[in-house]
Amino acid sequence: MNETQWIHELLDSSGSAIGFRVREHLHHEQSDFQTIDVYESTDFGRLMALDGCWMVTQRENFIYHEMLAHPALYSLEAPNHVAIIGGGDCGTLSEVLKHDSVLSAIQIDIDERVTRVSEQFFPELCASNDDPRVSLLFEDGMAWIAGCDEGSQDVILVDSTDPVGLAEELVSETFFRQCHRALSDQGIIGMQSESPLLHVELLKTLRLRLANAGYSDIRHHLFPQPCYPSGWWCITLARKSGQFQDTPCRNVNERMECRYYNAAIHQASGVYPTYLRAAFDDE
Amino acid sequence: MNETQWIHELLDSSGSAIGFRVREHLHHEQSDFQTIDVYESTDFGRLMALDGCWMVTQRENFIYHEMLAHPALYSLEAPNHVAIIGGGDCGTLSEVLKHDSVLSAIQIDIDERVTRVSEQFFPELCASNDDPRVSLLFEDGMAWIAGCDEGSQDVILVDSTDPVGLAEELVSETFFRQCHRALSDQGIIGMQSESPLLHVELLKTLRLRLANAGYSDIRHHLFPQPCYPSGWWCITLARKSGQFQDTPCRNVNERMECRYYNAAIHQASGVYPTYLRAAFDDE
Repeated sequence: MNETQWIHELLDSSGSAIGFRVREHLHHEQSDFQTIDVYESTDFGRLMALDGCWMVTQRENFIYHEMLAHPALYSLEAPNHVAIIGGGDCGTLSEVLKHDSVLSAIQIDIDERVTRVSEQFFPELCASNDDPRVSLLFEDGMAWIAGCDEGSQDVILVDSTDPVGLAEELVSETFFRQCHRALSDQGIIGMQSESPLLHVELLKTLRLRLANAGYSDIRHHLFPQPCYPSGWWCITLARKSGQFQDTPCRNVNERMECRYYNAAIHQASGVYPTYLRAAFDDE
Repeated sequence: MNETQWIHELLDSSGSAIGFRVREHLHHEQSDFQTIDVYESTDFGRLMALDGCWMVTQRENFIYHEMLAHPALYSLEAPNHVAIIGGGDCGTLSEVLKHDSVLSAIQIDIDERVTRVSEQFFPELCASNDDPRVSLLFEDGMAWIAGCDEGSQDVILVDSTDPVGLAEELVSETFFRQCHRALSDQGIIGMQSESPLLHVELLKTLRLRLANAGYSDIRHHLFPQPCYPSGWWCITLARKSGQFQDTPCRNVNERMECRYYNAAIHQASGVYPTYLRAAFDDE
């Protein structure tokens, strides 16, 4: 590829597309689970796509990774043990490790190749992978959580692809029950939960399943996500006991050098537009 | 066009693209100023593009139009006289008219064809155009503001295309000075001001020019914008005197039936991510 070209992700289910101008196709492989592509783009740094869906760009992945990690971890005084289901690019892991209270961070991604490709092409996301607190496991997250010691995790983050195919089980009530069992008394599950514009019905389904699985409080945080459909995304948090506060429950450590997240963003990202309030009020 | 096809806006300056799947090309014309296209899409209702850039989709334009109108108008106790420069699709106008205090709403768009095409294909945006408070002018906004009576407008909203070509003058210090002159003592200028991810330098330039033009306080509100580059957008507000409050300065009227905007969104949309705070702190 000597000249630039445009590569588009065409999302059939939403009838919308996001594309980037690329100058080089750096990597392509078919792993045991999915295709993995890495491109050098003209304006967004390197891009990774799984099965043709944009996952990460170097320019803006900080928003997603910070927002998946910090609202959850700052909803606890001192999270010690964190598990990440999925998250093979290690960006969420690197944010989790910024919290001094964290003693163990276990990442369970079914596809080792995603992590190996990230180590090669996105070294900044993997810079903390040799932290002694880290365990990288390459196995099925559903099976791992079923065998996880009861009450052993303070936070479980689900950093999955879209909830179809591979990741469909990760939004099931069965999975939410197994996470509930694996969480400590004050524990929190946090998951990427798609677009607040395109996937309102999915959000309502998640809320119902989490409530059925025994969680005591559910909250969403909304944020921009330029490389995902609609450019707008959210995470869903649920507590094993107690209620979420509107604000971080401890001082946000500015030495962590977050580029997007701060205490005011924690609160602001938890505010819902009117139509979403109405959708949840119907429950 | 018998089958669906994908139409992409390729934004050269950002190296990113946004596309939609369309089933019918409803309208195409070359006006005196730009090309105007309307498509029927599979998932976002009708779409309008000016010079190949997506301007409006029926599915999500409520976010942009509410956020351009309401944070500005809810920063005043009782805005009476409102001017909209640009805004030919009339969506911003329809939001402005929801405020009972508004006595006159003047829309000045250089291209009458945008409004006529909107009346035909986006009638829901134009439903209030025959409100007796409305004046639709089709002339140059720069010339209009230069001749506008001093102190005659409480709010001036700039709902323009990207600040290149036609709309470049609408971000000039000269224009901001003329608006300042046309505003009443407590008056507010509000403008669409591009992507908080892609256009940080433009925001810094706007802030400098607004300060130079004599405005006393400047504030941005951030919101999702699925059909514009990066999917994330902002407005910039500036006051002729006094300071912005964090919250609406009067009760938000729920009968207005906003789908995105509410009092909590007013406050939340004014919170900046850490990198943007840092960019502004450098000033």
